[in-house]
Amino acid sequence: MIKAGVVGATGYGGQQLVWLLRSRADVEISFISSHSNVGTEFDEIYGNYKGFLNLRSIDMNEISNHINNIDVLFLALPHGKAFELVELAYRNGVKVIDISADYRLKDEDEYEQWYGLKHGAPELLKEAVYGLPELFRDSIKNANIIANPGCYPTSSILALAPLLKNGLIDTKSIIIDAKSGVSGAGRSANISNLYAEVNESFKAYGLTNHRHTPEIEQVMSDLSREKITLNFSPHLVPMNRGILATCYANLKDQVSQDELYDLYNKQYEGEYFVRVLKTLPETRWVRNSNICDIGLRVDKRTNRVIVVSAIDNLVKGAAGQAVQNMNLMFGIEETKGIDMIPMAP
Amino acid sequence: MIKAGVVGATGYGGQQLVWLLRSRADVEISFISSHSNVGTEFDEIYGNYKGFLNLRSIDMNEISNHINNIDVLFLALPHGKAFELVELAYRNGVKVIDISADYRLKDEDEYEQWYGLKHGAPELLKEAVYGLPELFRDSIKNANIIANPGCYPTSSILALAPLLKNGLIDTKSIIIDAKSGVSGAGRSANISNLYAEVNESFKAYGLTNHRHTPEIEQVMSDLSREKITLNFSPHLVPMNRGILATCYANLKDQVSQDELYDLYNKQYEGEYFVRVLKTLPETRWVRNSNICDIGLRVDKRTNRVIVVSAIDNLVKGAAGQAVQNMNLMFGIEETKGIDMIPMAP
Amino acid sequence: MIKAGVVGATGYGGQQLVWLLRSRADVEISFISSHSNVGTEFDEIYGNYKGFLNLRSIDMNEISNHINNIDVLFLALPHGKAFELVELAYRNGVKVIDISADYRLKDEDEYEQWYGLKHGAPELLKEAVYGLPELFRDSIKNANIIANPGCYPTSSILALAPLLKNGLIDTKSIIIDAKSGVSGAGRSANISNLYAEVNESFKAYGLTNHRHTPEIEQVMSDLSREKITLNFSPHLVPMNRGILATCYANLKDQVSQDELYDLYNKQYEGEYFVRVLKTLPETRWVRNSNICDIGLRVDKRTNRVIVVSAIDNLVKGAAGQAVQNMNLMFGIEETKGIDMIPMAP
Amino acid sequence: MIKAGVVGATGYGGQQLVWLLRSRADVEISFISSHSNVGTEFDEIYGNYKGFLNLRSIDMNEISNHINNIDVLFLALPHGKAFELVELAYRNGVKVIDISADYRLKDEDEYEQWYGLKHGAPELLKEAVYGLPELFRDSIKNANIIANPGCYPTSSILALAPLLKNGLIDTKSIIIDAKSGVSGAGRSANISNLYAEVNESFKAYGLTNHRHTPEIEQVMSDLSREKITLNFSPHLVPMNRGILATCYANLKDQVSQDELYDLYNKQYEGEYFVRVLKTLPETRWVRNSNICDIGLRVDKRTNRVIVVSAIDNLVKGAAGQAVQNMNLMFGIEETKGIDMIPMAP
Repeated sequence: MIKAGVVGATGYGGQQLVWLLRSRADVEISFISSHSNVGTEFDEIYGNYKGFLNLRSIDMNEISNHINNIDVLFLALPHGKAFELVELAYRNGVKVIDISADYRLKDEDEYEQWYGLKHGAPELLKEAVYGLPELFRDSIKNANIIANPGCYPTSSILALAPLLKNGLIDTKSIIIDAKSGVSGAGRSANISNLYAEVNESFKAYGLTNHRHTPEIEQVMSDLSREKITLNFSPHLVPMNRGILATCYANLKDQVSQDELYDLYNKQYEGEYFVRVLKTLPETRWVRNSNICDIGLRVDKRTNRVIVVSAIDNLVKGAAGQAVQNMNLMFGIEETKGIDMIPMAP
Repeated sequence: MIKAGVVGATGYGGQQLVWLLRSRADVEISFISSHSNVGTEFDEIYGNYKGFLNLRSIDMNEISNHINNIDVLFLALPHGKAFELVELAYRNGVKVIDISADYRLKDEDEYEQWYGLKHGAPELLKEAVYGLPELFRDSIKNANIIANPGCYPTSSILALAPLLKNGLIDTKSIIIDAKSGVSGAGRSANISNLYAEVNESFKAYGLTNHRHTPEIEQVMSDLSREKITLNFSPHLVPMNRGILATCYANLKDQVSQDELYDLYNKQYEGEYFVRVLKTLPETRWVRNSNICDIGLRVDKRTNRVIVVSAIDNLVKGAAGQAVQNMNLMFGIEETKGIDMIPMAP
Repeated sequence: MIKAGVVGATGYGGQQLVWLLRSRADVEISFISSHSNVGTEFDEIYGNYKGFLNLRSIDMNEISNHINNIDVLFLALPHGKAFELVELAYRNGVKVIDISADYRLKDEDEYEQWYGLKHGAPELLKEAVYGLPELFRDSIKNANIIANPGCYPTSSILALAPLLKNGLIDTKSIIIDAKSGVSGAGRSANISNLYAEVNESFKAYGLTNHRHTPEIEQVMSDLSREKITLNFSPHLVPMNRGILATCYANLKDQVSQDELYDLYNKQYEGEYFVRVLKTLPETRWVRNSNICDIGLRVDKRTNRVIVVSAIDNLVKGAAGQAVQNMNLMFGIEETKGIDMIPMAP
Repeated sequence: MIKAGVVGATGYGGQQLVWLLRSRADVEISFISSHSNVGTEFDEIYGNYKGFLNLRSIDMNEISNHINNIDVLFLALPHGKAFELVELAYRNGVKVIDISADYRLKDEDEYEQWYGLKHGAPELLKEAVYGLPELFRDSIKNANIIANPGCYPTSSILALAPLLKNGLIDTKSIIIDAKSGVSGAGRSANISNLYAEVNESFKAYGLTNHRHTPEIEQVMSDLSREKITLNFSPHLVPMNRGILATCYANLKDQVSQDELYDLYNKQYEGEYFVRVLKTLPETRWVRNSNICDIGLRVDKRTNRVIVVSAIDNLVKGAAGQAVQNMNLMFGIEETKGIDMIPMAP
């Protein structure tokens, strides 16, 4: 039995994590915590859990009392809120899976530059492993701290990895035009996320300065062994869940669509959670699942490749991937508890 | 291993059924059939199944060749399309679970009157058991033909059953104002169900003449031992899934809200799939689950009771309940494969 | 030139009012005010006005400095926020059109009971005229204070008025099951109105205790000359705009659907903003207009009549009706500036 | 009085055109025609017109009987359906405004290549003027045939025109990632446009081969005086109306965001229907209007410019622009009847 603590359980990502962990016979949720809903029963906030889970969120300050009773600590807080908790867990030999952005960037200066605050535990950065199993599975298995990838980076990196690893594209030409459902904006009371503000509209936001940019660049640079600077442009879609990333790059040489499909099929062969499709992905076909769908087109007229990927931002883009990482860290079947067929409509 | 055939697998209800059966280790889908997509692979129609299921729909005429290889035949066709198939299955000792309306009304004349065609197998009507387990569990266990309840009737009947069984309401006063998501209208190419026709709008339809009316009246009459005539008013909600039924009735005597809650809690005690809530149900809290949420209010000013129930129309209102019936008919744990926590957002 | 002040201009109703007034050549918006956005330019909040209107909201306290420069004061604040402003305007001979609920109930005790606060200007209640032109046109023309009807009451009262005035229904049997788009909940930062909380869900709220109940009862009692107590049940629809009210009542005697249609056609003959339809109303067909669509069905089986009405909650349910009242008060063509054809899709 | 015929009036674009023309005192709709709804009253299809317009669609074959009674013929048919009608009108001295794609491409071979059929009236191609008034106003005034621009091209071309005309970007680097609401897909009964197929999903379609590609390339080539080949990638957004185009290009030289804003402000100075915004456009702020909003960002890290534009696809992207062209052709105030403030929410 794996004993887990979930911090930030009442956000959308945290809640999805609770959903996945609750369905496991081999995992016990020892406590949940929340910075905004202390003392409230979980099923009062999320009525879907009525009859299934009525844990009360404990205060963040109480977590230290429980740290020795758990095997893994999941953190689903906004960035910058959990430096001490991660240190506490790490020093007590508790595995950490951090869904926030705090341990994703290797360089503390870059963290400060993009996130606007000093990193609170820079010495742990080198301990953290980027938790994208399809690319870094072996390191994840032995990690003590997992930096769980952002939703946009997950979809973007899986989309372009085969091209980057094989040096097929001009790395100066990368443009990622990504679109996310509204749950990605979190569950806080902002007027800009009200139904009547978001519904029946579409917009771009964070052009040239979204915080997922350096994360994507860091991993893509590693994969290609070139320093990559790119454009990442997020947009907001009036739907609850889902990310679609449309990724553009110039091909260095003439290469056919079929050849690229061969490459993608080889790269992702045996990966349960990546489906390489002849058709173009749609977010509905991955909703409520841990799957990433990928399709691509080569435009011979411009010699450009367009790779489209789709994920559920709360599952493969957050909680599902966190569980996938947990499975790997604890030597469990990687797909356990996250092998749901996407549910439509 | 239970071997199942699914006819009408490519409609929304049929697809949901395939989803639920596919996840079972103890069930094998022997064949799927569809009147409109013969020969097409299932995952071409429903991309969520890519990598999980690529059965081709067989022609309806071929089903007789497979009837002896299956234990249960699920039918998810429009009404009036499967009289012969049901007879074929019945005579071959195959259990039948019919999601259509053909075996729900006990009286063939009433069927003709509301459905506008002659019943094709009236002699089987007495064999059919109305598959609402929370009320008719024992009969279901021994049934050979299950008339799986309609989505609106499921939510309406569960909402009012405790009041009817206990004779607490004036049965002449019942009004059911129900609201359904668009998947309830089926997956056929009608202009009236196009996105831009349905989105950002709300309407009533079928007032005074919806076909679920006699079904609701029949079961409610049975429960109350009075002939009930009522108003059932369906509405269309711009969302994919979910039914909310707001049910009104005059209380015969003064009875408090707390007393009624006691009654409901007693009636549904131990029922995994019915949650009696102090709060008012919302469809999001039951989405993607087999659960029916029920809440109620007594208005002392008018001495009227308002009972609100919520279900997922494709699960408890169709495919999930069909599986629940299958479980009962085959002596399996009733909740098996349909015990998902609702998923939000 | 009519000079108008708009208080509460940055809410959804206030904004719709600004939209309507801005398009008028014979109306000048002298100032706008807002309790939450003082000093902000209007087009920073509502980007649709960029290039059309960039007034800054003035502080509520400054309004007294402008009161002598205007002919009409529109108030679109939450209830209980404008007692002094209304008095100020009234005493200065400025016409008042109050979109809030403060002057709708004639009885200050009933106000206190339902709104939970003492009425701040009870002596003005008798001055206020209920601004539903189709029923109270003559009084409106000479009024100094208009209590602009609530959105739900507008749709409900227009739906049942012909039956009530003609004494055709059992007034104890009235049930109004109403459904509203989300803009009706206002533009405040509540988690419960976030996109991902509202989208893909449907719920009832305020059963037996919604504040529009006594307003509906008061007007219906006046129309029928009987004290009416009824059930009013609002629901939330995942769409921006629109109200559909499904109204039920028992017919006292046998009366045919055709006879009732004759009655409705006669009642609303010549009313530009009421359309009596053979078909059932849909909110999309009245969106962005000041029109109320009404359709009805008689159920012979239960001898009950069901009247369905649809309005745009922000136009006929708020700002459009306010302009209609202004037109009447100032002796202008009643339809001026609000005669838009509904826009679809 | 301008007498107008509208062919294809019952599609979404045609209907929007009827809406705009109906509100004009100086325009009379002489007839409407439709290939699928002959004989049906318009307000039976579009209930919003009840009480406003109940013309019956005439048969296409009857149009020749009316051609001499009209001044302008609007065509809102699918491509390839109106070659003869356009010729008929042209030869009879009737101005033609064609919302379809038939007269947009100057080269009949290119038409055949992208549209898969032979052009039926190639001799008229040179008569047709591309009806984008902000760029080709003078030619439009004297045109006899207007090729009304596509919705995607309108938004894309207005977004990049200032950069192209001033030679500031590498024309090989252009990528247009565009997103459209569902009304853009038309009003035909396809399963892929059903509510439950489109809602809660997001997808790309037509990558590398969408028919608006050569239209965009042709006009952009003209503007830049270079042969341009580019990537145009449309996506489908679950909303009724609106297009957002996110346009990427590499800057030839270092140029600041402020400098580009100066350029855009100068280019579009005095244009009623183009708003250059410091903020990023959102489709909701242009909905139900003829306005195109444009915002831009320069990414110094990649020396790339990102221009974002938003329009209402049915208005500026179709019917509104058609009326704008009509106004110009008939010497009327350009903004007449299309100067609505966008309506939100």
